[in-house]
Amino acid sequence: MAELRQNIVYKQWVIIAKERAKRPEELIEKEGKRLTHELPEYDEKCPFCKGNEEKFPHKESLRIPYVCYLNTEASKSFWQVRVIKNKYPALSETVELVWDTEHPIFRKLSGYGIHEVIIEHPKHNTTLALMAIDEVFYVLKAFKERYMELRENSKIEYIIIFKNHGPRAGASLPHTHSQLLALPIVPKDVMARINEAFKYHEEHGGCIFCKLISEEIEKQERIVAETSNFVAFVLYAATTPFHMWILPKKHSSSFANTTDEELLELAGILREVLAKIYYGLNDPDYNMIIRTSPITYEINPFFHWYITIVPRLTRTAGFELGSGMFINPSIPEEDAKYLREVKIPPLPLLGKM
Amino acid sequence: MAELRQNIVYKQWVIIAKERAKRPEELIEKEGKRLTHELPEYDEKCPFCKGNEEKFPHKESLRIPYVCYLNTEASKSFWQVRVIKNKYPALSETVELVWDTEHPIFRKLSGYGIHEVIIEHPKHNTTLALMAIDEVFYVLKAFKERYMELRENSKIEYIIIFKNHGPRAGASLPHTHSQLLALPIVPKDVMARINEAFKYHEEHGGCIFCKLISEEIEKQERIVAETSNFVAFVLYAATTPFHMWILPKKHSSSFANTTDEELLELAGILREVLAKIYYGLNDPDYNMIIRTSPITYEINPFFHWYITIVPRLTRTAGFELGSGMFINPSIPEEDAKYLREVKIPPLPLLGKM
Repeated sequence: MAELRQNIVYKQWVIIAKERAKRPEELIEKEGKRLTHELPEYDEKCPFCKGNEEKFPHKESLRIPYVCYLNTEASKSFWQVRVIKNKYPALSETVELVWDTEHPIFRKLSGYGIHEVIIEHPKHNTTLALMAIDEVFYVLKAFKERYMELRENSKIEYIIIFKNHGPRAGASLPHTHSQLLALPIVPKDVMARINEAFKYHEEHGGCIFCKLISEEIEKQERIVAETSNFVAFVLYAATTPFHMWILPKKHSSSFANTTDEELLELAGILREVLAKIYYGLNDPDYNMIIRTSPITYEINPFFHWYITIVPRLTRTAGFELGSGMFINPSIPEEDAKYLREVKIPPLPLLGKM
Repeated sequence: MAELRQNIVYKQWVIIAKERAKRPEELIEKEGKRLTHELPEYDEKCPFCKGNEEKFPHKESLRIPYVCYLNTEASKSFWQVRVIKNKYPALSETVELVWDTEHPIFRKLSGYGIHEVIIEHPKHNTTLALMAIDEVFYVLKAFKERYMELRENSKIEYIIIFKNHGPRAGASLPHTHSQLLALPIVPKDVMARINEAFKYHEEHGGCIFCKLISEEIEKQERIVAETSNFVAFVLYAATTPFHMWILPKKHSSSFANTTDEELLELAGILREVLAKIYYGLNDPDYNMIIRTSPITYEINPFFHWYITIVPRLTRTAGFELGSGMFINPSIPEEDAKYLREVKIPPLPLLGKM
């Protein structure tokens, strides 16, 4: 029997279609799929590969050097993470920010904004799920450094960091990368989410996410991974199979507030969760998004920042577009159990070139 | 230069990425595409084809007979449109409606609801864009008849009618069909849209859609087609290339309020618009949704029902998931001009078997 489940934070209903439910194995895309680790280590046509920096020049906004214990002269010239300006930016820094909202119907805004690409690793055949912990840490560190710099720009109201892995998730290049868009507005959808959390705070006090976290930890049935300060679970009202959140256990309203120690711990649990879907679901395409508070209220008692991971194993169609609801053909508790049982081969703690 | 445009009704911002903008021709999927009219007229494996009714038995909730001028005995047994119960329904009529919302965090509802499929034509190789006007009319008539019957069910709060055309739009079968889901709740997203229209009414009086329609008709630059009582245009803040709305010109808050005369006129403009994308964009995959008021207030001064058509020429990725915003790599005025200039071959006025 199908059921409708409500996402308690956002009040969105999801149809958990048990009649149509598929076993996790049935959802895996198998045919003709080339896994990330089967790619060559270097691709001469890839604009993100180490060695191709001159061939595909980009304006660089951050470079995290490769840190090597041997600390040889050669190692100093290597990079671990590069943040570059997007060559075809959706929004541009070079235009003035102009609000043109006089017309009662046709309002617009000049396309001011910042669009950057975080090249997560020098090698072509890796991804967050396969990297060493310190390598994942440097990626998160790059996210934070760029966030901290861009938030000082008074024209920017919201910064969104996201990753598209694989073509079904919208990635046009296979080399592991994330993107950052700094926007001159807070998107309506982001405000709606913040408002829902605020409403809970008004009615009950505290943070609805904090309450949800403690319930999930008590119940255990949807937990996928847990560390001292972070927890990852499949959502009770998951919109798609294996839809997961990774949250700090202690209340924190913005990714901006994380310390380096926390980022290192986050690197561990993020890699664990991504490795579980890599090995358990055959390197599925997925989107990953950091959901955080708007810059102007990074410290607040009601919103709790988190990472959402949405594997793209199903397709949204007319019903989803029309209703904003989702039909999930899997059972969140079974998805979580499946992922808990996935065996990950030993992964390196520290990276090497 | 890119710009951000606001959908005045829903207040959603869309990035019109002029730098990334593609010419309409560049957006067309060409390779390996089999057009609907190239399919066989009959497919023995298709559960929706005329002649296969016994082989694939379905519970039928409506049958519109084939109306033939000759009115022979044989013609009486033919059907023009069939509405059947979905074999794998997302929600089911056979369960009791139970609200289980006592738990402060994990709320659910039994999977009560009605899920039907509208088989739009007996033949396998046609679609709304290619049908005769009267055939399209019978499809709309079937939508309305099912809507009118299901709205009498006191457990149903919202009825959504939608079409998935092609695999990228989520269709699993090529035979032309639409779907109907009758829900025991009003989806949050639907309520949010209604509320935005209500807010405008509170502040300014009247209906924001009516105002938008008169502005679009005056401007003409985004109009694709127009009849005495309906208008179709590409949205100023189109979320995807060729994203269009078809609306009644006179205020009407629910699809339920349309007369048969209006449905016939709507059949004409709907077919015209769909034929323009069929011939102009190489039979693209698309979603079509009827956006209408909830059953309990089908007559109201603020919401205006309409049909939205969303061609699936681009992919939503992490940015869209994360922000609820869209990046449209085309220019709405150019899209509309392109469609206005598409020449449609002569299409039949009346259907024949």
